[in-house]
Parts: sequence; structure tokens; C-alpha cells
Amino acid sequence: MAYISLPDGFPGIRGPMMFRPDTAKPMNELVDVLLRGPSTLSPGERELIATYVSAENDCRYCQTIHGAIAAHHLGGDEELVLRVKRDYENAEVSEKLKALLRIAGKVQLGGKRVTPEDIARARQHGATDLEIHDTVLIAAMFCMCNRYVDGLATWAPDDPEFYRQRAALVATNGYTASTVAALTATTAS
Amino acid sequence: MAYISLPDGFPGIRGPMMFRPDTAKPMNELVDVLLRGPSTLSPGERELIATYVSAENDCRYCQTIHGAIAAHHLGGDEELVLRVKRDYENAEVSEKLKALLRIAGKVQLGGKRVTPEDIARARQHGATDLEIHDTVLIAAMFCMCNRYVDGLATWAPDDPEFYRQRAALVATNGYTASTVAALTATTAS
Repeated sequence: MAYISLPDGFPGIRGPMMFRPDTAKPMNELVDVLLRGPSTLSPGERELIATYVSAENDCRYCQTIHGAIAAHHLGGDEELVLRVKRDYENAEVSEKLKALLRIAGKVQLGGKRVTPEDIARARQHGATDLEIHDTVLIAAMFCMCNRYVDGLATWAPDDPEFYRQRAALVATNGYTASTVAALTATTAS
Repeated sequence: MAYISLPDGFPGIRGPMMFRPDTAKPMNELVDVLLRGPSTLSPGERELIATYVSAENDCRYCQTIHGAIAAHHLGGDEELVLRVKRDYENAEVSEKLKALLRIAGKVQLGGKRVTPEDIARARQHGATDLEIHDTVLIAAMFCMCNRYVDGLATWAPDDPEFYRQRAALVATNGYTASTVAALTATTAS
């Protein structure tokens, strides 16, 4: 049971977001810009970064839902998502993405852990300033989301099908729209 | 020097925020709601939580600017800010704030580190669901901001007077307005 009284029926981050719409709004906007906005990184690649950081933070809800969204964007390849979480250096992703995942992993440990060598490796494989910026901020943002979800002891469904269905919805409509729809439905009922 | 090419003259988080206004906007909105919006925790108390978490993350820019903003709200008491960073259990703050700082410190380590006992202590001293929620999210948000600032290797001024002056500006105008003013000045020049 969560540490505070949250609206029923909303797992993971969705409980506290329904509890506090004023903070949910900018959080969802930030996620939409970073994971779905215009970028030279595909939505699938960005969701992989989010999934990897959430797995490193051992956040069950976040790694499962963002893993499902990543897989959705990657043609349903759930195996690839698992391989990235377990050992991205040997997964079938680009060398640039591997270098960005390394930066993301350093950010997860602490901002100062990122080294000039980590940045040089990413540049060597073609990463731009904006891609490096967004990788650092995606990793940092999930260090926030993971702590928000687990710091309040929210619950997470067991059924993988739940995450697949939610992933399809979020991949189609975005984070803000998916939360607003739930808030409107709750207010109307 | 920062790892990516940032606009000159903006220390700490302000450099990447000027670099990427689309992500700065929701980040500033989130900080404004959490640290300056309506709350039963005073702005000074909330800035102390932000300062403490930033100190635990060893982020020089964030702990110094938010420490200066906290001191500004607390009648200029810079000593109290230092005492909270060093040993809040023996600082002259309320028992409720001490219990919330303990929760914030656990969130800094990782969401799962927060225990039912930490929550019970906060409730015993009168903390509400919303205060507990906001403490967890403030702590989580600064785990994002600190990583953003240090993961990109931004610079931080040495002069304490710089932070005092910026603190007075932010305390008066808020986070969003202070960033928008700088963006407008840059665009106009």
C-alpha cells in the first residue's frame, strides 16, 4: 500500500499524478518533449534510455511500462529491450546508442560520474550536442520519476499484458493526453 | 568547460536551460509549483529540502543557489542553512521539517530507501499526505536537477555575493519568470 492516500486504480506514477495534477502537468510536458518531441533519436531509442535507467534504479513500474513502450516503437521486439537492460554493449543497437546508454548509466550513478571519455566516445559515433544533452536529461528525469514512484511505495501490476495495452495507448496519444484523459474521466464520474 | 556548447554567461542549470528552452519551460513550472506554489510548508522550508538534497548529491551550484534562496526566505540566516546541510537533526528547525528532511535524504539515496517508520515519524509531527508527497517529489526533482547540472559539467561562480543577488531576484520573481527574462534579453540582443 502506498505511503499516502492515492486515488484507486492507478499504478506506478499514475497514482501520485492523479493525486497532484498541478505537478503532473509539467512532468508530463517534460516527458513528452524529451521522449516524443522532434529529435534525431527515435522514440524507441529514447524509451530504451528511459528503460535502462529505470532498470538500474530497480524501479519495477517504470522499467516495465517504458520497456513496453520502447518495444511498441521497435516493432514489438521485447527481447531487444531485455538485452539492452541486461547488457547493452552486446545488444543489437547502434554504436551511438551504446555510447549514449553509457552516459545515461553514469548519470544514474551521479552527474559527476560522466567523464570526458564518455562524451568523446559518443561524439566519435556521431552524437550531437543536443543528443548528449537530451540523453543526460532523460537519464536525470528518470532518476526523478523512479524515486517518485518508489519513494511513495506505489503499486505495480504483475500482468505483462497490462503494460502492453497501456504502452499502445501512450505511444499513440502521448503522456500528457493519457493523463488528462484519466483526470477528466475521474472528474466526470 | 561544459561537455556541450552552452550559451556564455549562464552558470549551473541556467546554461542548459538557455540551450534548450523547450525542456526548461516545464522544469521551471515544476519548480515553481513545488517550491513557490500554495503549500503548508513555507518557501524557506521547501528551499531547505532542495538545498539539503543538492548538498547530499554534492552539486555545488544547486546547493549554493538554493541555499541562498532559502536564507533569503529565512530572513538572511545563512548559518541556519549551513547547519541544516551539516546536521539537520540538531538544527533549529521544526520536528516536522526534520522528519521530512529524513524522508528527502532517503529519496536521495533511492526511492526504496524510504521506510514506513520514516513516514510514521513525519505523521507523528503533523505532516499531511500532501506535505509527504511534495517532500518526496522535491527530493526526486533535485536528484534530476543535480544530475543535469553536473552530468553536463556546467560551471559555478565562486563569489557568494553572486548567489545572494540571484537569490533575491528568484525569490521575488520566481523560477519561470527569471529564465524567461534571460531568454528574452538574449533573443532581443
